[in-house]
Formats: sequence, C-alpha cells, structure tokens
Amino acid sequence: MNETGLSEEEIRNILNDSKGQDLKYERVLSSMCTYPHKIAVQAHMQFIESNMGDFGLFRGTYNLEKEILSLIGDLLHKADAVGYMTTGGTESNIQAIRSMRNLFLQSSEYQNSANSSKNSDNKCARPNLVVPDSAHFSFDKVSDILDVELRKASLDDELKVSVESVRSLIDENTIGLVAIAGSTEFGQVDPIKELSDIALEKNIFLHVDAAFGGFVLPFMKKSYEFDFKLPGVTSIAIDPHKMGLSTIPSGVLLFRDFHQLESLKADTPYLTVSTQYTLTGTRSGAAVAATYAVMNFLGKEGYRKTVSRCMELTHYLLEKLKDMDVYPLIEPVMNVVALEVPKCDLVRSRLAKEFNWQVSITQNPHGLRLVIMPHVSFEMIDSFVADLKKILDSLE
Amino acid sequence: MNETGLSEEEIRNILNDSKGQDLKYERVLSSMCTYPHKIAVQAHMQFIESNMGDFGLFRGTYNLEKEILSLIGDLLHKADAVGYMTTGGTESNIQAIRSMRNLFLQSSEYQNSANSSKNSDNKCARPNLVVPDSAHFSFDKVSDILDVELRKASLDDELKVSVESVRSLIDENTIGLVAIAGSTEFGQVDPIKELSDIALEKNIFLHVDAAFGGFVLPFMKKSYEFDFKLPGVTSIAIDPHKMGLSTIPSGVLLFRDFHQLESLKADTPYLTVSTQYTLTGTRSGAAVAATYAVMNFLGKEGYRKTVSRCMELTHYLLEKLKDMDVYPLIEPVMNVVALEVPKCDLVRSRLAKEFNWQVSITQNPHGLRLVIMPHVSFEMIDSFVADLKKILDSLE
Repeated sequence: MNETGLSEEEIRNILNDSKGQDLKYERVLSSMCTYPHKIAVQAHMQFIESNMGDFGLFRGTYNLEKEILSLIGDLLHKADAVGYMTTGGTESNIQAIRSMRNLFLQSSEYQNSANSSKNSDNKCARPNLVVPDSAHFSFDKVSDILDVELRKASLDDELKVSVESVRSLIDENTIGLVAIAGSTEFGQVDPIKELSDIALEKNIFLHVDAAFGGFVLPFMKKSYEFDFKLPGVTSIAIDPHKMGLSTIPSGVLLFRDFHQLESLKADTPYLTVSTQYTLTGTRSGAAVAATYAVMNFLGKEGYRKTVSRCMELTHYLLEKLKDMDVYPLIEPVMNVVALEVPKCDLVRSRLAKEFNWQVSITQNPHGLRLVIMPHVSFEMIDSFVADLKKILDSLE
Repeated sequence: MNETGLSEEEIRNILNDSKGQDLKYERVLSSMCTYPHKIAVQAHMQFIESNMGDFGLFRGTYNLEKEILSLIGDLLHKADAVGYMTTGGTESNIQAIRSMRNLFLQSSEYQNSANSSKNSDNKCARPNLVVPDSAHFSFDKVSDILDVELRKASLDDELKVSVESVRSLIDENTIGLVAIAGSTEFGQVDPIKELSDIALEKNIFLHVDAAFGGFVLPFMKKSYEFDFKLPGVTSIAIDPHKMGLSTIPSGVLLFRDFHQLESLKADTPYLTVSTQYTLTGTRSGAAVAATYAVMNFLGKEGYRKTVSRCMELTHYLLEKLKDMDVYPLIEPVMNVVALEVPKCDLVRSRLAKEFNWQVSITQNPHGLRLVIMPHVSFEMIDSFVADLKKILDSLE
C-alpha cells in the first residue's frame, strides 16, 4: 500500500479504466445474471451500511427481510416458510444440505445404526445425497465441505433426472434428494412431483434448487409443480439476483419447518440478537432493501412481463436459428437454450475472439448454451445470429 | 406478492420509513462495523452489476481484486500471498480451516494412521482445531460445518491465549491452531510469535483471525508481530468492511502457499473460467471496487490517521471513566474497551432503553464492551459518559 493515498481524480480514472475492461451485458449470452433493476440499485445505496449480521441495530431493514421471506414464501405456496436472505444459491444449497445432514445425524435411527455396525473397510458410514447429474457445481462444494457423498442420478432423454435412477441410489444413509427447477446448463425442470412422492415414502428431505427457475416458473403461462405445494419438498433455494433483478448478493433459502432452520443455529453473545442461523456473520442489508424494492415495484405483473419478453426473445432466436438449420438439444422450457452446433468449443471461442460474444458450453450433451436475460434485445439476437452464421458457414 | 407493483413514490416512502427504524451509527458503540467511506460507496455503485463468480466477463474488476490481494499481502509481509475477497470473516475462517482439514486428511501420515487404527468407542478419529477461548462464534459454525472438533485453550490474566494451554491440547489429530489479532470481545492480541513457533515445531497450520485487527495493528505506533512475517503463520483473515472502511460484503482470506488455496478447488464448467476456489459462486464485484477505491484513497497515512483518531478517542473515554472510578478489565490494546461495571447487563439494558445507546457485554470476564469506531466523536463520548454516570449513580 502506498504511504500517501491517491487523489479522487486518480482513483476515478483507474476505476473508469477498469470498468472499460469489464464486458457490458449487451455482449453476454452466457450468464444467469443481468443488470439489477434501477430501483434495486437506488435502494441498495440508501441502505449501504445496513448489517443484517447485527439486525438489532437495523430493525427497519430486518422487517424488510421478513417481508421478502413472506412474499417469496407465498409465491412458493407457503407464506410461513422460514429462512433468510443468503449470499446466493451456493450458500443456500450448502445450508439446506447442512440442515439435512445435521438432522439425519441427530436422528435416533442413525444413532442406533451407527452404534451397532461398522462396515468392512473400517470407515464410518458416510451420509449421502442423491442429486441429478445436471446439478450445479455448488453441490461439489457442498459434498466436500459437509463430507456428504454425492450420488449422481442419470438424466433421461429430455435431460430431466430419471426417477428410477434416483430411487436406485437411495439407501439407509441417504439424507435427502435434490431436484432442480431450471437446471444451469439446460434450463430443464425435474419431475419434482414424483421426487416429492419418493421423499415422503422414504421419509427423507427434498431440496429444490430453484436458484434460477424460482423467478421464472411462477410467471410463465404454463404451470409447473416445483415448490412447497408438493408436500415432500422441504427446502427451496431461489436467487433474487438472477431473474429477480436484484443486486448481488441476493439469495433466499426457505425451509418448510422451523426445526430445519434451527439445526443451523449459532449462539452470538455480543451482538444485538443472541442467535444466528446464517452462514455469514456480517451480512448485507443493502441487498435486502434492493430486493424488497424491486419485488414490490414489479409485482407479479412486472415479473410476468419480464419473463414473457425473455421467452418471446428465446422463441425469436429459435426461429431464426431454425432457418439456419440449427436446433436446440431439447425444447427449451425457460429462457435457456442449448444448441446442437458442430465443433461447438471452436465456435464459442471464435464468437468471443472475432465477434465479442460470450456464450457457454454444455458438457453432456455437448452444445452451445445461451441464456436470454432481460438485457437481451431483438437487435442483439439479429446481430448474434448473423455472426454465428458467418462462423458456421466458414466451417463447411 | 401483489399482482401489480407499487409506485416509485410508495416504495420510496416505505424505504424511508424503514431507514428511520434503523439506528444511526452515532448511537452505536457495540459494533465493529461503521459507515463505509464515501469513495467506497461511489465505487460500489459504479460496479454494482460486476460478478466475480464469472470474472472472465469482468476482467477489469478482477484485476482490481488482484491488486487488493497484493496490497494487503504486502501490508501483511507477503506480497505474493494467495487468496481472494470473501463475504467476510466467517467465510474466511470457514475456508481457512477447510483447507487445513482437507490437506490434513489427504496427508500420508493421516492416511496411514486411519487405516491402521480405530478407537475404542467405534467412532472415527475426528480432526481437531485448537482455538483460544476468546475465538469468534464463527468458529462454532466452522466446527459444525466441517465436522472439526474445537478445542478451546484457556486465556491468561490479560485475556491472551495461554501458550501452555494450547500446547496441552495438541495431539496427532490436530490440524492446526487459530490465533487472534484483535479478539472480538476484548480487542486483545494473542502471543502469535510463540504460537508460530509451536506450529512450526508440530508441523501444523496456524490461521490468524485478524478480521478486525488487520486494519488496526499495522497502523498503530506500537509494532505487533502477527502476520506472515512469522514463518509459522499459514493463513490470515482480514475484513476491509470493518476498520478498512469498505462496503459489505468485503472480507479477504490470504494463504501463504498456493496448494492451500488449491485444496478448495471446484471445477466450474460453464463459466468463463474453469476453476473456482471461493465459497460462494456469484460474488460481488462492487465490493472489490469499493475496497480498491478506499484502500488507495487512504493509503497507509490515511489508515494511520483513522486508527490514531480512534485510539485518541479511546484514551479520552478511559480518562473520563477514570474520573468516575470506572476501569477497563484489561488495558486496551486497540479501540475496543471492556469495562468493569456493576450489574453490567442491567446497565446495558438501561443505556439502550433510557438513553438510546447501543453497547454490548463480554461473557467472561463479564463487562460492558464498547468499540470506538471512526463514527465516534468527542461529543458522543461526553454524552455517553454523562448518561452512564446517571445510571451508575442511580444504582448506588
């Protein structure tokens, strides 16, 4: 660090320079994030010093958080669901599985079986979690952090998790299942009703990762069963900082029952409140205010318009691609498109280097992936398709 | 959620109302956080959509993060220390201990001993971590999340961790030690040089929680050995969103060596970069820009002035309290004061209810705790002391 600081002007120049090196979202078709709504940004600024880690000092912001949880709970068919605003989907997933694991390990069934048996290779039986093969990489972090074995269920032809595969992976050490409402790579929705039935039958938890889809599915014309309406669903992750148009870091984790949240408890002796259920300590109140502002400004109607526009753009894109004989790997459910494109890694690279477009790649099946976020326009799609055509023509 | 959204004006009114219910820091003497610096707030806004979870899109912001790590590394006597900007001290502590645990479990010594023995009550040997009894509650979260046994070493008369107690708690399953540079309750600094020597002798990790003290100690007149200059120190947590005057969420975690960071690796197939070491996925770039701006604006000189003013106010407070026969439990090392006050729980409660002052309580020993942050003024102290006197007089 310098002895003396730089001037405001010098700092402004460096920041402007750095900002210039950041891509604008208008070139980005690879991300599930977008520009936050202006009203979210204004609220974020107004509440910039607010700290939810010490919410006895910030009762006003804390009440906004309670309102948000109630609004989102209601959207997901359980207005009294309990939880809190997280830093995003990864924290939500970690905490949901941590709660499952802790309750499983404390259960009398587990205690009895652990005391009476040991397996043959002299290791302790590890709790396991059954997840779709399409699960977000955050579940790899979850597995490592919490020491929970990840069992990956295979996908069917539509890239939904296979219910038979899930069932075949469950054993007496399975703490729960994960279902995805809007998979990261394909935007697909798992057969959550069937998984809910299995979870009830086996008396295990079911966590729904709706980090992306939670702010899309409730606002689509077609109705999807994915939330607390299904009795087997015990927790849901949903991210306002994706299609919710809020600022980073805005995630939400909701549990069906309080005892699930309680399993995450830490005593906090020198703060204004004596108990904390969150992963982090100090926690952004600005993101709470931002999320409150945008959710109340848009209302269901506003989110319906946002989703509708994204779907319209998605279908417009698909029509134009059809004219070029380029087809999606599956019929898109949401504003996520995975395209069957020859040499897609090379195409992706050339799109970035020659035309300054950011797209991504799906692993299996291998394809070119685009997310049609609210910052996308018809002109962007026209321009992108024209550039894609140039590359594909050059490959022939 | 409402069908139709509210108007901008309605939202503004609700937010203003909520802000009014949040306390202003001018009434707060209990918190290690404060108003972020104006230049940090401006930078935060400018970079509000920047997402470090996908930093291939935000190369400008990413370079600012690298700069920050280099500046802080240099401040802590290892300019090439590796790490990243976290959501705060809790994430930093979780990730530091997770790295220790993973490397310990992967080590050949552990593998050999685990294969050859099992203990008598049929449970697997659990890794343990030796921490001072004064450790922040985030270590309780660490213990639960990572399944690491917390062994709490006792404190000496000055509320520093006892080196003998630490030594007595180390065994073959000890993955490392934690030392605190600026304990949350008392602002005390542990004998980190001695702990560094033990860590080297036992070949175990030593993590320094300098979440608060990291932005105080380097800027004090007296010099403290607490950082990478001590060869046994293997990781450090330091929070720009405390005395660094940056916005929430701004934490930093630094490791001595890259293999420590590498033990936290997750593959990230559909982002712009293929590997991630962070706890969260989506991650605030705004906090990166904010931290860069304030650190470069203040420079060492600016932080020295900040710390010097806080210490001046701390001593002013102590002088006034001495006139009232009120003394600190230990001689304050930093701008954290724990006072010996009769019926301190009652006093705290009355300070809040009758006089609208927020202070906190230390557990053991039991006392009234104040943190003299940059938002404190001489007038605030005069006013607080007068109110405290009224309460203490009424108790006689």
